[in-house]
Amino acid sequence: MNERQTAEWLMERDDFLILTHVRPDGDTIGCAAGLCLALRGRGKTAWVLENPEATSLFTPYLEGLTAPEGWSPDTVVSVDIAARGLFPENARCYLERVDLAIDHHPSQEFFARETCLDAGRAACGELIYDIAGLLGPVTREMAVPLYVAVSTDTGCFVYGNTTADTHRTAAALMETGIPAAELNKRHFRTKTLKRLRIESRIVEGMELFDGGETAVAAVDLAMVAQLGADERDMEDIASFVGQVEGVKNAITIRELRPGTCKLSLRTDPEVLNASRVCALLGGGGHAAASGATVEGSVEEAKRAILWAIEQVRHG
Amino acid sequence: MNERQTAEWLMERDDFLILTHVRPDGDTIGCAAGLCLALRGRGKTAWVLENPEATSLFTPYLEGLTAPEGWSPDTVVSVDIAARGLFPENARCYLERVDLAIDHHPSQEFFARETCLDAGRAACGELIYDIAGLLGPVTREMAVPLYVAVSTDTGCFVYGNTTADTHRTAAALMETGIPAAELNKRHFRTKTLKRLRIESRIVEGMELFDGGETAVAAVDLAMVAQLGADERDMEDIASFVGQVEGVKNAITIRELRPGTCKLSLRTDPEVLNASRVCALLGGGGHAAASGATVEGSVEEAKRAILWAIEQVRHG
Repeated sequence: MNERQTAEWLMERDDFLILTHVRPDGDTIGCAAGLCLALRGRGKTAWVLENPEATSLFTPYLEGLTAPEGWSPDTVVSVDIAARGLFPENARCYLERVDLAIDHHPSQEFFARETCLDAGRAACGELIYDIAGLLGPVTREMAVPLYVAVSTDTGCFVYGNTTADTHRTAAALMETGIPAAELNKRHFRTKTLKRLRIESRIVEGMELFDGGETAVAAVDLAMVAQLGADERDMEDIASFVGQVEGVKNAITIRELRPGTCKLSLRTDPEVLNASRVCALLGGGGHAAASGATVEGSVEEAKRAILWAIEQVRHG
Repeated sequence: MNERQTAEWLMERDDFLILTHVRPDGDTIGCAAGLCLALRGRGKTAWVLENPEATSLFTPYLEGLTAPEGWSPDTVVSVDIAARGLFPENARCYLERVDLAIDHHPSQEFFARETCLDAGRAACGELIYDIAGLLGPVTREMAVPLYVAVSTDTGCFVYGNTTADTHRTAAALMETGIPAAELNKRHFRTKTLKRLRIESRIVEGMELFDGGETAVAAVDLAMVAQLGADERDMEDIASFVGQVEGVKNAITIRELRPGTCKLSLRTDPEVLNASRVCALLGGGGHAAASGATVEGSVEEAKRAILWAIEQVRHG
């Protein structure tokens, strides 16, 4: 369904439960809150299913919107969920009865009865904004989580997925009077001291190969334990070394437990296909960003990925 | 003059020389390049005066636009220059004969015969975009430097100066087909290894006071010499410690030469007026970002600024 059909479809229904994805980010949470408020604005009953993995960075946007225990919905809507495997544990009971999926992932699995998909959108929040605008006026209250959705999925309008439409949506959302500067400060201009210390250790320990084109960074268990870092401190750490001037292939090795490491590879996809490299190690992903989990020490993981890069380069 | 009057004024004239400010940033360079190309697009002769301080980050945008030696203009236009004191050495001969100043600084000194000022714009580039659009179609070639102007002056749409209009301008510029992802990568997602090492040293050496609300970072001569860092590596270093979670007053001390230090203070202006603090040390600036140069060691500079903060707090 397109946005207009989706808005009409929503208007014909009531008693909504909105689902978000595992390891929830700003887009899924912001979409859920924005849609929930837009439906309530049209007199509907709407709730968001609690997501136990939501961090304190995003839970404030769900205040007053989380479904009460035992609430029985008539209409189940998923936002920003591409695949069945991305349903949180407590949402799995709805797997076979999602009435509508609203999404922007090209890998959408069409698990719902109806789907509103636009893979050209940088954030699912852009789609929800359009739908909310067809339901009624988009208020400041709705605009706050929708701005969080759109800005976080584009790294605050810096990533390559950002389009002219993304900026137009941001302009419209800002015009409702949202505290954009405060939201940007919270989501893009604040780092924990632990995170900065991890970054600092990465800089000190980073190794460069191929005349500086390939960088290898390692985060081992000892480092994480010593700094007392948690998952929030580690968010998107795989993109850190890619910013070093001249680096084209950025490798981040994270020791998950003794003898097991997670490899992340970020590349310029026109030079090296990251997905092909990681496939050689049993992993996969996108051409510009892929990963694999390998058995072995940090040192062994490093040798494995450097070997795999060589294979793809000369294969 | 407003934008329309300015466009008409420009159309009536020819043989333009465009001036940029000292320590040129993306806004002044992007404005100069964008305006120069827009004027040429209307068949005018237009050149940008060379700015000897322009770094390699920005000089590519001036390729083919730099005035030939001895070029004698009929019309002199300054872009993004707020004050007489901000004219580069080689532009001082034009101080008394600037025909038009286009600017967005509230501190504009009205040194030119005509002034087009809008202090509500995040970047001077927004103004130039509007003027260019009144002169004729804004091409991709003009849009590239104008996007650099608008994006760099807002930290890529993250700073508090960003408005709905800023996003609308960005949307229009992107629609001309500029390589925005590549420009963003260059200006916002790349750091030199030396810069990262300086940041890493700052994190390791940073001191916290007032239960973590005040942070003091120091960059001394030994550190800069040891890393072989230059001015490009130091750009906007004063904003680095302000990102630490919980920090409200961010102090950066940079040793300029033995016995002389530059202090930078970033604050939440509603809690502490940075300008009042720095005034006590002979400096000044804005309520949220100020500086002062003091005689003394790094340790003495630290004591001086902490003392000044106490005075303003209890004054």
